[in-house]
Amino acid sequence: MKTLLLKKDEVSRLISVTEVIAAVEEAYKAFSSDQVEQPDYMGIDLPSPRGEIDFKLGYYKANEIISMKASSGGFIDNPTAHGVPNGMATIFLFDARSGALICVMDGSLILGLRTGASGAVSVKALARKNATTVASIGTGNQARMQIRSINEIMKIEEIHAWDSNSDTLFKYKTDIESELGIPVIMANSKKEAVEQADILVTTTRGKGSLVEAGWVRPGTHIVAIGTDQQGKQELDPEIFRNAKLVVDSMAQCTEKGETWHPLNKNIITKDDIHGEIGEILLGRKPGRESDDEITIFDSTGMAIQDNTTASKIYHNAIANNVGTFFQFFEQ
Amino acid sequence: MKTLLLKKDEVSRLISVTEVIAAVEEAYKAFSSDQVEQPDYMGIDLPSPRGEIDFKLGYYKANEIISMKASSGGFIDNPTAHGVPNGMATIFLFDARSGALICVMDGSLILGLRTGASGAVSVKALARKNATTVASIGTGNQARMQIRSINEIMKIEEIHAWDSNSDTLFKYKTDIESELGIPVIMANSKKEAVEQADILVTTTRGKGSLVEAGWVRPGTHIVAIGTDQQGKQELDPEIFRNAKLVVDSMAQCTEKGETWHPLNKNIITKDDIHGEIGEILLGRKPGRESDDEITIFDSTGMAIQDNTTASKIYHNAIANNVGTFFQFFEQ
Repeated sequence: MKTLLLKKDEVSRLISVTEVIAAVEEAYKAFSSDQVEQPDYMGIDLPSPRGEIDFKLGYYKANEIISMKASSGGFIDNPTAHGVPNGMATIFLFDARSGALICVMDGSLILGLRTGASGAVSVKALARKNATTVASIGTGNQARMQIRSINEIMKIEEIHAWDSNSDTLFKYKTDIESELGIPVIMANSKKEAVEQADILVTTTRGKGSLVEAGWVRPGTHIVAIGTDQQGKQELDPEIFRNAKLVVDSMAQCTEKGETWHPLNKNIITKDDIHGEIGEILLGRKPGRESDDEITIFDSTGMAIQDNTTASKIYHNAIANNVGTFFQFFEQ
Repeated sequence: MKTLLLKKDEVSRLISVTEVIAAVEEAYKAFSSDQVEQPDYMGIDLPSPRGEIDFKLGYYKANEIISMKASSGGFIDNPTAHGVPNGMATIFLFDARSGALICVMDGSLILGLRTGASGAVSVKALARKNATTVASIGTGNQARMQIRSINEIMKIEEIHAWDSNSDTLFKYKTDIESELGIPVIMANSKKEAVEQADILVTTTRGKGSLVEAGWVRPGTHIVAIGTDQQGKQELDPEIFRNAKLVVDSMAQCTEKGETWHPLNKNIITKDDIHGEIGEILLGRKPGRESDDEITIFDSTGMAIQDNTTASKIYHNAIANNVGTFFQFFEQ
């Protein structure tokens, strides 16, 4: 039995943004079609200045691949003390037909890629067809990933960006304009940015103050990325009162997503959640139904997104003879 | 960052039975000293003729290593359909100081090694010092591992062995006599073997009929290996009524070990459990206190045994320049 080993730079060359978007769309559909098993994750919390290490398992029945992602984060002393990043990730793929370990790949790019693609998939399903303007609240790495992905499926004419750190904001403007040629307007306030948005993307990890309900224009599609655990929040829960709310996973979003906050405040009930994005992609539920609707996509992230993305990378590697085979035992 | 890759044949050359015994003893002590975190395992059950794949996580604070064992079993078509064994295992080691993946090793030998050593550790703590005779109920691979380990820590003068399959029994006799030079008497019944035992080792995976209470002589030490999940059983629960019962993990044994059966029948209560083997090894509780006691060690197996065993293999590999380094990303 041979196991394919893939380095980070190989992973980066083996998949395009378009392919990640397709993989994430497949993941959402599979999840809403009973094609997925995702047991509760396992994790170890380490004392400060270390962070945590998590293990997330996903089985996709249609491709017969089981993925395990080991990811660490929050080890703030790593660069100085150990010469490695604050967080690292590795993805292990098993052939579910035999149980064999078929691939070990660096996973540090995959979280960013598949999370970036999640917003784009929701834009396809929920944004106005005549949307041209994106507001970006947060301008870090994931904000860039969102723009790269959304730009694959529509023409972004301008970006209104805001960040609590003005240096970060300026760097984002410079990077996006040179990489993608999209003009970036640096907003003086969140309000200024949000008021311009056809599509609003929040990627602040829920650590800042909130986007207020009064700022959001009718017809806006909101991509809520930053809240994936209890204690994080990016949106005024009042925004949810009259919006069409779509989640990646009903179970996760109601427990630890942005959706938890309006539920907790009794602004909405679970019955007010329109559905999972997979249900819309499968045609079981409508997406946007008018140009005036405010739509919200709450993305908490799922193991099956890692699975379909890493599986595509693996298959591309095999097809292109990229990577190193290692035989852990003779057969 | 570099990750060490170890093949099965390298693993087999990198650790001795004596070192595994020491590693398992360390694991038990660590477990009873709050030095261990072992979250609930994750698993995927696949439809027949496939089996299951499990992921077991263990963090040992003293050595700052986190181990994850991925193991599959019960894929009965694997040899013919896929050219791989029914079950496979891989162990992943992470440096808990940084979260880095430091080692990926074939794990197919480790379960057998560390389980084999568990019986030997219990013999040190609980068997009579003048014990010479072992009865082996079950004569498969794990029965051999038990004998190899126990033989490291005492002189076994003869083995009385029984198996439901007489061919398997004869092969065991031939193998053990040629490998270790210990005479093996093939018993005509379980009773015949058990009645001769100073030390009784049961490794039938709990699929056969039971060892009856009336057969067990005073002073016998029983190593109960085969019951590690609900539905398995090897011992008449009446044996527990007047025995000194020691477990590897209180939580596991009362839920899915041999210990569950007498608890379920109200033959004993949890208060009748003498303690965990780690408590005895640490000197917090007495081991055997008289030559007449019947002692029972109920072994269900713990992730921390994989951790300490695999960590020793890893350190031996580094010290001896064995294995292949692979760099998943440049730093």
